[in-house]
This record gives sequence, C-alpha cells and structure tokens, in this order.
Amino acid sequence: MSSMEKSSGEAAPAARSRRTPERAHPVTLREVAEAAGVSTATVSLVVNKKKSARIAEETRQRVKDAIRTLGYRPNAMAKTLVSGTSRFIGLVADGVATTPFAGQIIHGAQDEAWKHGYALLIANTEGNGELEQDAIQMMLEYKVRGILYSTWFHRQTDIPAPLREADFVLVNCFSHEPGARAVVPDEVQGGRSATEILLRHGHRRIAFINATIPAPAKDGRLQGYREALEEAGVAFDPELVMEAYPDQEGGYGATGALLQRDVTAVYCYNDRMAMGLYDGLRERGLSIPDDIAVVGFDNQEVIAAHLRPPLSTVSLPHYELGAAGVRMLLELEGAPEMAADGVAKMHCPAVERTSVKAQARA
Amino acid sequence: MSSMEKSSGEAAPAARSRRTPERAHPVTLREVAEAAGVSTATVSLVVNKKKSARIAEETRQRVKDAIRTLGYRPNAMAKTLVSGTSRFIGLVADGVATTPFAGQIIHGAQDEAWKHGYALLIANTEGNGELEQDAIQMMLEYKVRGILYSTWFHRQTDIPAPLREADFVLVNCFSHEPGARAVVPDEVQGGRSATEILLRHGHRRIAFINATIPAPAKDGRLQGYREALEEAGVAFDPELVMEAYPDQEGGYGATGALLQRDVTAVYCYNDRMAMGLYDGLRERGLSIPDDIAVVGFDNQEVIAAHLRPPLSTVSLPHYELGAAGVRMLLELEGAPEMAADGVAKMHCPAVERTSVKAQARA
Repeated sequence: MSSMEKSSGEAAPAARSRRTPERAHPVTLREVAEAAGVSTATVSLVVNKKKSARIAEETRQRVKDAIRTLGYRPNAMAKTLVSGTSRFIGLVADGVATTPFAGQIIHGAQDEAWKHGYALLIANTEGNGELEQDAIQMMLEYKVRGILYSTWFHRQTDIPAPLREADFVLVNCFSHEPGARAVVPDEVQGGRSATEILLRHGHRRIAFINATIPAPAKDGRLQGYREALEEAGVAFDPELVMEAYPDQEGGYGATGALLQRDVTAVYCYNDRMAMGLYDGLRERGLSIPDDIAVVGFDNQEVIAAHLRPPLSTVSLPHYELGAAGVRMLLELEGAPEMAADGVAKMHCPAVERTSVKAQARA
Repeated sequence: MSSMEKSSGEAAPAARSRRTPERAHPVTLREVAEAAGVSTATVSLVVNKKKSARIAEETRQRVKDAIRTLGYRPNAMAKTLVSGTSRFIGLVADGVATTPFAGQIIHGAQDEAWKHGYALLIANTEGNGELEQDAIQMMLEYKVRGILYSTWFHRQTDIPAPLREADFVLVNCFSHEPGARAVVPDEVQGGRSATEILLRHGHRRIAFINATIPAPAKDGRLQGYREALEEAGVAFDPELVMEAYPDQEGGYGATGALLQRDVTAVYCYNDRMAMGLYDGLRERGLSIPDDIAVVGFDNQEVIAAHLRPPLSTVSLPHYELGAAGVRMLLELEGAPEMAADGVAKMHCPAVERTSVKAQARA
C-alpha cells in the first residue's frame, strides 16, 4: 500500500454499512405529501413543474422542502409511461471486450447522447446472435428512443428482425435495404491520405500490403491508393500490391516478398501489420525510415505511437462514428450528410509521426 | 465492394422505410382488448400470466392471438413500477475508450448479469466526475438493482456520494470505508506467478523493472517477486529492482541500466514495458530468450501474443472481475470469498509463451 493511498483512506468519512440485505424502501410520493401536509396530486404537480397549476408559493415551497429533507427521487420510469419513450438510446456493440474500436464508438455515442439528455443502454454481444436478439427485445421493452447497431469492423450487415421495430442507425456497418441509415468510415479517402503522406515526402515506388480478408476496407483502401497515385502522375503497378493476413504475423511474413520489389516506401493495411513488418525489416538489418518508409492504418492506441520509430498512420474515426450516429438518430443539426443510399461517410484523418523520411529525388 | 457482400445485399428482403419521422404509436393494452373483444383487465391478466385468474381458455387464446397480430409488447417499465426495482444493473466504467481493460470488465459483468435475467446499464465516464454523478443519479432514477463501480486500473477510490444510495460493489478498485464490498486482482499472487515462470526455468539472477507510479500493482507485484524468490531460496537483491514509466518508452529507456546488472532474466511490470525493452535489447544485438529471458504482466490483447518472440506473461482477470462483481452484488452462489475488509482477490493466471528459455545450471 503506498503512502498516498493510506492518507486518502484515512481521510475517508465513515459510511453506513452497505452489507445489510434489507435496505429502507425508496421514499414515496405519499410520504412527501404527508410530510408537507398536502395531497399526492399537489406533490405530483410540483415535481412535474406544472406552472399552470394554481398552487400557493408557500405550499410549493413546503413540498420542495419535504422533497429535500426526505431525499425523494422522482421515478424516471413513471415519467416514461406518460411520455411513451424513455430517455434511453440503445447501443448494440459486438466487440467491446476484444477490440479497442468498440470502446471508442461507445465513448462518442455516449458523449453526444448525454449532451441531449439521453443515456445509453449498451449491450455487448461479442457476436452472439441470441444475446443480440434478447438485447434488442429488452431495449424495445424499455421504450428506447432508438437504437445504434454497431460492429467493430466496417462491414455489410443483415438487419436483425427486432431492430426494425425501432428507429435505428447502423454504425460502422451498412445494409442495402432501402431506408437503412448508416454511418461508416470513408475508406477510400483514408487510403488516399495514407498514400499521400508518402507521395508528399517524394516517394514514387510505393508498395501496398493489403489484407487477404474481403471487406469494404480492403477495396476502399486499395482504391484510395490508386487514386492518390494517379493524381500524383505515378503509374499504378499491380506488382506493388501484395496481400497478407492483417496482423503482426502477416506483416512479418510479407517482409521477404516486399524486399523483392524495388520500392522506397510501403503502406500497410493496418498498424498491426506494420508492427510485424518492423520486426521483419529489423531482422534483415534495415532501418525505418532511412532504408524504407512505412505508413500504417488505424492509429491503434497501444501500438502506433509506441513503435520505434513511431508510426505515421491514418486514424479510424470511431469516436466520431458513435457521435454522428446519435446525431443522425435524433435528426439533429450537424448530422452527417447521407448519400442517396442512406450512408454517410466520415473522414479518416492522417497522423504523421517519424516512420517516413523525405526521399532524395533521383 | 466484394462479391460476397453484393450477393448478401441482393438476398436481403425489402424493408419498410425507417426514415419517416412519424412512426405509428406503440400498440396499447386497450387496442388488444378491443381486438379480442375483452376488457383491458382481462388482457392484463393474460399478459402477466396470472394462472389463478379464471379466464376461459378460449378467451385466453383470443387475447394471445390479438397480441400476436397487433405486435403488442408489454412495457417493462410498468412492471418495474409494481416490483420497485428494475431488471437493470448499473455499471460505471472510467476507461472504455482508452483501454482494453474496461471492455473486458463489461463483457464479464454482462454475461453474468444476463444469465440471471438482468441487463447492464453502462455509463462510460472517462474520468469525468460530473458525468459520473449524473450517470449514477440516472441509474438511481431508473431503479437499478445495484451498481458496479469500476476503474480501468486497480486503485483505491473515493465513493461518490450518490453511489451510497444504491447497493454497490467496487470492481478493480477498493475503499477503506466500512462495508464497501470490492473485487480486485490478486497482485501479490500475480507477481509471484510471473517470477515463478523464470525460477522454474532455472533462472536465479532475475531483475524486476517496476513502475514509477504508486499503485497497489506496484507494491503487490514487488511483494510477489520477493515471496517467490524467498520460497526458491534465492536471496533478494535490492540492486536488481529498477523503476521505469510503465509504457514502451519506459521499458526501452531501462535497457542500459538493466544490462549493467548481472542477470539472465527480467520480469517487467507490464507488457507495454516489455515491448519497449524488446526494442532496446534488439538494438544492442541481444536475443530473447537466448541472451535474456523476459516476462511481462497484463497479457494485453494486441501486444503479448504478437511480439517476436511471443511474450510469457500473467493475465489480469478483468472478465472475471466483472462477472464476480455481479455475483457479489446479487449475493449469488459462487460469489468470491471476501476478507474481513470486504475485499475479494481474484487469481491472475500465468500465460507461458516463448520469451523464456531454460537456463543451464552453473
């Protein structure tokens, strides 16, 4: 135990025990009414701030005093019964435990929901379809204002049947069903930005190690790479596009094939792949960025900034996806612009560190 | 767009548009009653499965048909008003967006809550005290069964005032206030297990790079290291205990000082530190595990298994902390054993990979 903790422990005030299983029941409207010497209807009018109700100021004050003294807490659920929807927004997420991405979607959605007086009711399914059905049912029973249905990686999704009974927005996934609103990362722009980092530093022979797994990210990031090259007047060479499994082992395994190409720079499908490639290049005595420049994708918290050298990359806007999803659901100002297919694309910002060095022009 | 996605998109059934802002109102009890030609009281008795009520089987069936046809959904909130508490358990977390640890606590808590018919109402505060107060107030208004108050790193905590109004369990944090129940990782056992991996492989000169930041983990892991050495008959040498900031840069920076000590193995306070140390050792041409064996702590998802060589480490039981917290709150069988101070300690399991090699005995 450190001294810091000890002192803060000693300063802590004594608390009543929380171990007793039978707690006092919550204070009721009736008890407030009795303490104030008024009817329960009068208390209800004061609590619900009905200005039109004719209640003497002195009486109103007496009710407020009783509320404060007794610690009465109005029941949010009772209010919901009157208004028809609760102040909840449901969020279904499929990878909270296994990826840092879902956590950032939650953070963005929660900040935005909170700003507008809503609380998030979050269900983490980890891909369990039965749990997902139950979670959505439960959200419907609690009369949520709407549901954000999110996936930890950007993909097409089926829309679970119960989801159709709510207002919903797809976050980091999309569907071709008419009317399904969605907010996803702009993979093409992200791929363009990653390639442009290298082009800006004078590189012209740039390899792209793409993923083996079919995904919108795979197609989009490749398209962005091609667009950036074309705009810079560099001919696209299919020989420079390779594929590997999108993790450290995949990046490491691609090192040999990469070095058979005559390139000065490489753009990796994600940061994990770049991390493995770092190991492969180092084993061969090559230095980053002096011998070869490296750019990743994802800006993954525990990796990107902490590689040696720190990795230039493109950030996936998970926080913004969550926040934009809430704005779309509530049809607020600042909701992202949807295309005709109901899909809004969010910008993926470039993050420059030191894994890219200017290339001397030939 | 890959062909896989296209085909699943084409197969998707047409859906009614979700873009219309004015949805039909939810089906009411009255509408079911009208459709079935019975009173609302009768519908209510059928919905609430009051077996004792004398309702003709034919009538009961007519009500059920009307419920199915109209898509009536009983209101969970109305039930809550009757029973006094909802089927929610609140979970306050402070680092969902910035660490993978909070996500695993959520996962464990949710799985366990679900098993017992509860849903989690999660608030992610990212350390914002005001948001935390509001979140707990909101949970109280929704009559949660209880609240799990969790922190992403193991530490002593103050108990926020509104938390005292609920049944609560501290998860991954603790307080010296009487009666505050808590579930935390067993740092001493974890430190012992980490050191024992190295001892089992014949190492005797083992350095420990501890964190500079005061925390229960710092004191506990050091104590575990000392206990393991003592049990193995190896004299504790304070010279072999160093300190560094607990991230990659800290581990990298400690390389020089480590190599001035005459050791064959090192146990790092966490995996991030070990990752930086890997870089430092490699730059000096040293090989893991041949020249020096390395053990970490945390078993961090994107790092530990993917370093080269994969890192032997000790796992922090975040999933189990969340699940055990729910069992403690609901006073279920299998709730972890508390000590007299209300704190239960969870086992931190060793995870062996290939960063440790047997040491030839001198």
